[in-house]
Amino acid sequence: MASAMVRAMSTAPVSLDTINPKVLKCEYAVRGEIVTHAQNLQQELQKNPESLPFDEILYCNIGNPQSLGQQPVTFFREVLSLCDHPALLDKSETHALYSSDAIERAWQILDKIPGRATGAYSHSQGIKGLRDEIAAGIAARDGFHASGDNIFLTDGASPAVHMMMQLLIRSEQDGILCPIPQYPLYSASIALHGGSLVPYFLDEETGWGLEVDELKKQLEEAQSKGITVRALVVINPGNPTGQVLAEENQKKIVEFCKNEGLVLLADEVYQENIYVEDKQFHSFKKIARSMGYTDDDLPLVSFQSVSKGYYGECGKRGGYMEVTGFSADVREQIYKVASVNLCSNVSGQILASLIMNPPKAGDESYESFMVEKDGILSSLARRAKALEEAFNSLEGITCNKAEGAMYLFPRIHLPQKAIGAAQAAGTVPDAYYARRLLEATGIVVVPGSGFGQVPGTWHFRCTILPQEDKIPAIISKFKEFHEKFMDEYRD
Amino acid sequence: MASAMVRAMSTAPVSLDTINPKVLKCEYAVRGEIVTHAQNLQQELQKNPESLPFDEILYCNIGNPQSLGQQPVTFFREVLSLCDHPALLDKSETHALYSSDAIERAWQILDKIPGRATGAYSHSQGIKGLRDEIAAGIAARDGFHASGDNIFLTDGASPAVHMMMQLLIRSEQDGILCPIPQYPLYSASIALHGGSLVPYFLDEETGWGLEVDELKKQLEEAQSKGITVRALVVINPGNPTGQVLAEENQKKIVEFCKNEGLVLLADEVYQENIYVEDKQFHSFKKIARSMGYTDDDLPLVSFQSVSKGYYGECGKRGGYMEVTGFSADVREQIYKVASVNLCSNVSGQILASLIMNPPKAGDESYESFMVEKDGILSSLARRAKALEEAFNSLEGITCNKAEGAMYLFPRIHLPQKAIGAAQAAGTVPDAYYARRLLEATGIVVVPGSGFGQVPGTWHFRCTILPQEDKIPAIISKFKEFHEKFMDEYRD
Repeated sequence: MASAMVRAMSTAPVSLDTINPKVLKCEYAVRGEIVTHAQNLQQELQKNPESLPFDEILYCNIGNPQSLGQQPVTFFREVLSLCDHPALLDKSETHALYSSDAIERAWQILDKIPGRATGAYSHSQGIKGLRDEIAAGIAARDGFHASGDNIFLTDGASPAVHMMMQLLIRSEQDGILCPIPQYPLYSASIALHGGSLVPYFLDEETGWGLEVDELKKQLEEAQSKGITVRALVVINPGNPTGQVLAEENQKKIVEFCKNEGLVLLADEVYQENIYVEDKQFHSFKKIARSMGYTDDDLPLVSFQSVSKGYYGECGKRGGYMEVTGFSADVREQIYKVASVNLCSNVSGQILASLIMNPPKAGDESYESFMVEKDGILSSLARRAKALEEAFNSLEGITCNKAEGAMYLFPRIHLPQKAIGAAQAAGTVPDAYYARRLLEATGIVVVPGSGFGQVPGTWHFRCTILPQEDKIPAIISKFKEFHEKFMDEYRD
Repeated sequence: MASAMVRAMSTAPVSLDTINPKVLKCEYAVRGEIVTHAQNLQQELQKNPESLPFDEILYCNIGNPQSLGQQPVTFFREVLSLCDHPALLDKSETHALYSSDAIERAWQILDKIPGRATGAYSHSQGIKGLRDEIAAGIAARDGFHASGDNIFLTDGASPAVHMMMQLLIRSEQDGILCPIPQYPLYSASIALHGGSLVPYFLDEETGWGLEVDELKKQLEEAQSKGITVRALVVINPGNPTGQVLAEENQKKIVEFCKNEGLVLLADEVYQENIYVEDKQFHSFKKIARSMGYTDDDLPLVSFQSVSKGYYGECGKRGGYMEVTGFSADVREQIYKVASVNLCSNVSGQILASLIMNPPKAGDESYESFMVEKDGILSSLARRAKALEEAFNSLEGITCNKAEGAMYLFPRIHLPQKAIGAAQAAGTVPDAYYARRLLEATGIVVVPGSGFGQVPGTWHFRCTILPQEDKIPAIISKFKEFHEKFMDEYRD
């Protein structure tokens, strides 16, 4: 009787009060409130096209190129299509539909898969032959040895980041040094695994410079609070900030990790996205090896993804991490955790091998492949420049160049009146600005507060991904909104 | 100086002593020690084919049908192949290579994907149109309403299980009721999320019966230790035990969860794998709805996967969970966690929609599809029976029928002398037996200790998946080994 009453009085079996507080704490603004609001407006627009002051939602919130009309790279899709239905390879009609080097590559890939079974769970790290191919691609890129045994293929880069956080974080007393602003996967993953994010600030004045003095300062401050800092996250090219690190800077970062006994977690998913002539991508492994550091000197993890670059194959969820500098027994633990999830999806594995070994000069598809690749990358460079110039032309907005990646992260110097209006609306100022922008234009950007920023500064992240013919209209809509907004709130 | 010395004396930045102890604690026998040993033997065999007393490794450790020669279902692969390379759909030559209903289905699927962009991140829960199609398939299966809003598409079932554990487990004081024996994903996930596994024992004598009295007893015992039990895991059809629950039994389980305020986590990935005429699969949602319970009465999650059934598409990593009975604010938290990982792979999403909506009578592919499907399922039934009879014919082995799923879980009544030999070798008796079996025959099974078992009993899990023509040889190898083993150790 008493027990029945207790039951009747108790709330539902699961409520916000009784779920894991780490889940509650986790935030991911890239698909947060503003995006949900945009999706609702889109539904409204479908029902009643005249109801809003714009006729489409322009999703500039997320690095999702194909959602905005970017076409997939033909060669990659041909190979995937053949590997999904290997029976095609025995038919003569196939040659009418697929390029000969795609057919050849599909055969090569199938020969690397035990029993040619693309529908089987693979090795927990991914198919060995594909890992070897990726390692060869890394070695060719860096000029230093890479081994397929160090590659862990994953469903995009995100699960790889989670795996490393899960390995390293024991409690709130374990800290991970993260750039601010940062891609919020890192803050979310640290929150989910119950660790502490130790922020280091990128210097907006010097084009989002990453200074080792700042790293040292923040490390010491964290240590003085009893935090054991386990790892340093570096995102290069930067997300949301778009800077490309200079080689000398990277050397200092490696030195810092080596001296302080930190794992270097290098987010290198934008390695193909460089838009300025005076910068080049160098992997942190290449930098470390060029400094003479070997596998014994420094634990280093590089994350790569099929979602970015010129390919932008987000829906395929392919990616890998290259894990070096860990002892054999710790690697075994990483392997064990990978095994619990059996393997990453095989199409994603195949695609990861393709992006690290694309068509070569002389291959039938090479020329058309290069036209597609260069077309996408040069257009992205033009779009980055056009948007940056447009932002910089506006009152109260300053915007660093996107040297790489897929984003601009303009600073908005909001008038006090606008800040007051945001407070009155119960929201932070950049979220207020982003919401007003969305409601006036249909343009979806992510408030800077979702990435972190120097307190008292306000930003937003805007992708450079809308198709090039839409950029002028986006710019003019944006300008019109911003001018009105300033007229409304100018102090 | 002092600091430099400390550094010099310290061990590597990451060691077994300094990683997350939850990772250390996690175990996953399905790809554990014995499988690593088998992989090493396989390499030995490749180098020196005469070096071992067998000529191939027979992987009976894991439910991975296509790795053992099962062919993928043609229709499913045709659709995937077309969706991977939608440009094919505009070409007339395509009709020579693909069935017309596969082409039609590919069009339908593309029309459900915004911008037909199979390379874009989808909605975090998966593509809405595909979720609706899955919901329609569930409704047709159960005779009760299902909603696409309740479907979360995932990369196989494993990440879905992790998501729920992550949501529910706050500390070691939170417990999850799990069957023993259980599929070790559950114990691994509970360990990784820092919770307590509360075991309930399946009754081997009654064909691995699941008794509510046992659930009650274990729940109360856990509660008396201060454990808050959050959820009950039921695997139906059973893994590793192969039983199919009776409807009456399922009703009692639902009632128990309802009364005790537990989330029912229903692993229903083997729903298509039923091999006996007197048993049928009923989803727990159908059972709950047929009892008059609505969404308000019971939080219930059903896991499904493209890896099992007759399709066995493990490498595609498709799956979903149907989440019902949670409040809106808790669902939002589940959505948020899904968002951090952006989405599951789109090919896997497509495949999940196909298995829940396969070709229908009248479709061009229907007949050949049914031949493939029935061929696989009837062969699996024959293999299950042949292996079960073989095991039961052996001295000291008793084996329940595989009514469903993909496994047999025979009990080995090991002689004391064998148990002593295992102890002398520093291993548990069933692992010793499995290792000896592997070294004598090349057959890989998983020791029962990897799944849990009544203390003092010993088992192993053996899949029914080797191709049918290999079964007689496996049986005779197994018999020969077992007889010799018993001759060596008989008390």
